[in-house]
Amino acid sequence: MKKIINNPTDVVSEALMGMQAAYPDKLVYTPKMEVISRKEKKTDKVAVISGGGAGHEPLHAGFVGKGMLDAAISGNVFSSPSPDRIGSAIEQVSCGKGVLMVIKNYSGDIMNFGLSADLAEMDDIEVAQVVVKDDVAVPDREEGTGRRGIAGTVFVHKIAGAKAEQGASLAEVKAAAEKAISNIRTMGVAMTPCILPAVGKPGFQIADDEIEIGMGIHGEKGIETTKIKTAKEIAEILVGRILDDYDYSGSEVAVLVNGLGGTPLMELYILNMEVQKILEEKGIKAYRTFVGNYCTSIDMTGASVTLMKLDDELKELLDAPCDTPALKI
Amino acid sequence: MKKIINNPTDVVSEALMGMQAAYPDKLVYTPKMEVISRKEKKTDKVAVISGGGAGHEPLHAGFVGKGMLDAAISGNVFSSPSPDRIGSAIEQVSCGKGVLMVIKNYSGDIMNFGLSADLAEMDDIEVAQVVVKDDVAVPDREEGTGRRGIAGTVFVHKIAGAKAEQGASLAEVKAAAEKAISNIRTMGVAMTPCILPAVGKPGFQIADDEIEIGMGIHGEKGIETTKIKTAKEIAEILVGRILDDYDYSGSEVAVLVNGLGGTPLMELYILNMEVQKILEEKGIKAYRTFVGNYCTSIDMTGASVTLMKLDDELKELLDAPCDTPALKI
Repeated sequence: MKKIINNPTDVVSEALMGMQAAYPDKLVYTPKMEVISRKEKKTDKVAVISGGGAGHEPLHAGFVGKGMLDAAISGNVFSSPSPDRIGSAIEQVSCGKGVLMVIKNYSGDIMNFGLSADLAEMDDIEVAQVVVKDDVAVPDREEGTGRRGIAGTVFVHKIAGAKAEQGASLAEVKAAAEKAISNIRTMGVAMTPCILPAVGKPGFQIADDEIEIGMGIHGEKGIETTKIKTAKEIAEILVGRILDDYDYSGSEVAVLVNGLGGTPLMELYILNMEVQKILEEKGIKAYRTFVGNYCTSIDMTGASVTLMKLDDELKELLDAPCDTPALKI
Repeated sequence: MKKIINNPTDVVSEALMGMQAAYPDKLVYTPKMEVISRKEKKTDKVAVISGGGAGHEPLHAGFVGKGMLDAAISGNVFSSPSPDRIGSAIEQVSCGKGVLMVIKNYSGDIMNFGLSADLAEMDDIEVAQVVVKDDVAVPDREEGTGRRGIAGTVFVHKIAGAKAEQGASLAEVKAAAEKAISNIRTMGVAMTPCILPAVGKPGFQIADDEIEIGMGIHGEKGIETTKIKTAKEIAEILVGRILDDYDYSGSEVAVLVNGLGGTPLMELYILNMEVQKILEEKGIKAYRTFVGNYCTSIDMTGASVTLMKLDDELKELLDAPCDTPALKI
């Protein structure tokens, strides 16, 4: 394992310290709690928080700042943050107008954020929750955990954060986030596995001439292992699966072509070229496009494509200014 | 080779097309010339252009936009753009106030940009050139090519672009760029080699338990091959070499902790934590810090550290607004 780290057990705290050190005027880091929060605390708005396992940088802490999140809570690599950590974040950002939790759909996250919400309610802090489940590689079903939350989470941070910044009520911020979630679909492909710092070697393998369609951001099994394909074919598969699941025809959409950590920007731009061609052919208008590493899987190579259908409200919220380490509009 | 590409010979044009497709309102792509230029052409300012081999994305085209470059010219992967391409960029952005070329110090770039400057002068376009040579891994000598230009180039784009945006003369923009160049030093480390799309396998090897200090961004030999080290040790080596070369003590500096393409943000933040600790110990104040993939080597893993000493003028230019795909202030 070749990583620029110190002790593998310290990667989460040290990465967050290093992020805070790059933005000392804007971010606060709470040791042990692994919380990054906005330095300029707001006193008159709904607080929006999110979090989950580490290893998806810049998600979640990279989206803390004006117009997006008020705080992000990190668990250990690929594991949910504990309720006491989430409680620390709530305490730091709650200012009487309520707290919206943006949760990715994993059972550990659902449980721990849920527990923290219950505890906060006991302290008379009003908490609402939304659950992102955008991964079309997983069937959308009522029973069981169902769809995973992946890169589309970034759009939910943006929409909810912008709505909160406008001074909307907790119910309104939650409604905007839910509208975004219902309009978002994501599909990914993994080329090579990731290496957890504490493990030191890949937890699974993908053959040298194969790729895995639909692999999750923690290496969860995908829907198909296939021979290496061209960027054009990969775009057709990813966008095809998304369009099979949701009818975006005639819509304006936000597009996210997201790298999984180890994939160079050159490849993401080539993939974007192919994605945009398909959207144009299908009569889907790309209103705004994002290309880069937004929701990663440590050093996994591969990419995902996310679409979010827009209406006037979502366009306004998407375009609203934000100022965070990983996104500035 | 697992890359999200189509034909390896098309990676440069397709990546630039994909970048332009993400910013259709802001960027223009000129086919065959491999030039990305600003859509909103300025008519009253010095034009700042840069370029070089592809494979360093987001450098150079990712820094085209308000407050930075007016155009970027790409060669093939790791090879200099031809004079006709550079001429196309000059033609697109020249508006009578002169053109500044920001050139990285490689013999091919020096020759081709120089030829293009001569040709432009014959068309009565005033052209000035600055040469970035920030890599302290290479001795700074009068004879031969001398120091390579690497990640510090991004700071030169920022400073020259901001000065030009203020309406300064060609001589003033050149002077600001030269001040920046003289104040910038960079040092890098490579962990794993990169794979050129047209080659399909690494052009060199780094042993599984070794890293190479001072490797160039095209895989040029470094100054030392050594066993894997901790982030703390790597920071000490990189910053140590920089401080041996230039006296930053008591200064305010801009810091760039740059990833080489395949290194996750988590590791760059950990490295930044260690870099900031050293700067603090040495009494060097980090005025503004950038962490991310700014000047890459395709999918190489590793990182570089850049420092730029600031004075009041450079601080103002660094802080000036810019709006490009890869940097927004």
